[in-house]
Amino acid sequence: MRSLLLASTVLLLAAAPPAKPKTPSDIVAAAPANAWKDVDPDDLMVIDLRNGARVIIQLAPQFAPVHVANIRALAKGGWWSGAAIYRVQDNYVVQWGNNETEKAFPKRVVEKPPAEYHRSLKGLTVRPLGYADDYAAKAGFASGWPIGYDPKAGTANLTHCYGYVGVARGLAPDTGTGGELYAIIGHAPRQLDRNIAVVGRVVEGIERMSVLPRGTEALGFYKEQGQYAPISSVRLASEIPASKRPTFQVMDTMSATFGAYVASRANRNDDFYTRPAGGVDLCNAPVPVRRKPAASSAMRPRPCRGDGSCAG
Amino acid sequence: MRSLLLASTVLLLAAAPPAKPKTPSDIVAAAPANAWKDVDPDDLMVIDLRNGARVIIQLAPQFAPVHVANIRALAKGGWWSGAAIYRVQDNYVVQWGNNETEKAFPKRVVEKPPAEYHRSLKGLTVRPLGYADDYAAKAGFASGWPIGYDPKAGTANLTHCYGYVGVARGLAPDTGTGGELYAIIGHAPRQLDRNIAVVGRVVEGIERMSVLPRGTEALGFYKEQGQYAPISSVRLASEIPASKRPTFQVMDTMSATFGAYVASRANRNDDFYTRPAGGVDLCNAPVPVRRKPAASSAMRPRPCRGDGSCAG
Repeated sequence: MRSLLLASTVLLLAAAPPAKPKTPSDIVAAAPANAWKDVDPDDLMVIDLRNGARVIIQLAPQFAPVHVANIRALAKGGWWSGAAIYRVQDNYVVQWGNNETEKAFPKRVVEKPPAEYHRSLKGLTVRPLGYADDYAAKAGFASGWPIGYDPKAGTANLTHCYGYVGVARGLAPDTGTGGELYAIIGHAPRQLDRNIAVVGRVVEGIERMSVLPRGTEALGFYKEQGQYAPISSVRLASEIPASKRPTFQVMDTMSATFGAYVASRANRNDDFYTRPAGGVDLCNAPVPVRRKPAASSAMRPRPCRGDGSCAG
Repeated sequence: MRSLLLASTVLLLAAAPPAKPKTPSDIVAAAPANAWKDVDPDDLMVIDLRNGARVIIQLAPQFAPVHVANIRALAKGGWWSGAAIYRVQDNYVVQWGNNETEKAFPKRVVEKPPAEYHRSLKGLTVRPLGYADDYAAKAGFASGWPIGYDPKAGTANLTHCYGYVGVARGLAPDTGTGGELYAIIGHAPRQLDRNIAVVGRVVEGIERMSVLPRGTEALGFYKEQGQYAPISSVRLASEIPASKRPTFQVMDTMSATFGAYVASRANRNDDFYTRPAGGVDLCNAPVPVRRKPAASSAMRPRPCRGDGSCAG
């Protein structure tokens, strides 16, 4: 008996310990290189505040092409020099632009863009979230973005999740040009979906906006210009020399890794979780974004000139 | 023809203009006095930070009675003197307590409280939200609080919405005493529901926490004690002289006004909304809370002594 007991103890010890459940972060960290897609430097908007803080936004031309073209033209035209953050409303938005002035737009800006509040579902490859959504017929992901969509109507829209960026506007039918923008700094105000053009998301530095003092006027506007957080420059990453340019990757929302990530967000059994929810809402499964690792950057095909010589 | 046209124009002008759609705020502002319920001063926790900021939390003894009793005992015992906010993680939590010390608890504190992660549905009068929830069988409101609930299992739980307060804890089966607390400062991390004791919500001053610098260590912990936001005192409102005590009211979640409020949150057609969502998630319909108005305070029955004389 005694030796049997010992033998079984040995067997138990020899068996592999139960696998530690993976956190969503574990899954993201272990993602293969091909689960990541490079962000076009023309789609990265680099905002430098006068206090030294930098905020980087990824634009979504697939969803709001005219507004995004406007934003690029405004950046290239230096339109935001002298602009500032002038509104910070708790659990809602940070808003910036040239609110106080009637600053003329660069020529290429379309002053009355179409209402790009949704687009055709056609041309998008959609991964359904797989859980209910209170603001759209369906929720899911396409091209690295969270979307609401309606298969019957054939439409899809970007959603107001934490860190997402929209175009401030007056009352309809004015849709805003893209000069005044806001980022979400609270619980997703999804009621704004399809009522406003969403043009991108903050991919780095949202915490440099979300810590700003809240404005004390109605809707969180600052009372005095002295309270504004001035912007020193807004550039596209493509305007910055390649060696100094920030580079980002977004997880391919059609990849197996992304599927595993969403499943783990919906069924947390890692750390101290004892009761997995069995579901997750769209904005609580943020699409992973990262700085492009140096190693994979070195492996990138180098741009070659017509004469066959290749750059660094 | 001309006169008919004129006559019809006159009729059109005489007709009442179409009613301006009401915003959720309009509905709350017009709520009758009986749609509001006073908050017990024993359920209000007043936190004063050394920087002068005040944060007021409403406790939920109906959902976590032992943890709330602990919190009251900790406040009365002055346990939080010397405590500080030591963790601020963007889009997640602000956390405070006496993390660094092994400070002894006052006698009445239960050091191993039961896991008050949910309670019996029995005894609660529930208003269903009426829209889907990804984290519970059903979502709704009871006694002025947002809840997830399961009619089959007969359980109900408080939810991790913006501003809600929970008890930080180590790994199971330790449930935390109530000494280390956190408040949500981002998109509702509902995956924490039923995994942690939720004990209340910030009813005033969440923006004094949400603007604090984010910690740069893992999970948003501050790197150095010099970065902490020290707490100068934590008291129950009932410990503060009545004349200086903050008083609050919560909207009765069974009132017709609250029903109209939720409906308007789900179907915004005011201001610039052109496409009402037709739905709302639980945390996007926050239960209205207000400072008790002076007028209704004057109308409150005055406390009377045994001899029949009544206090001012």
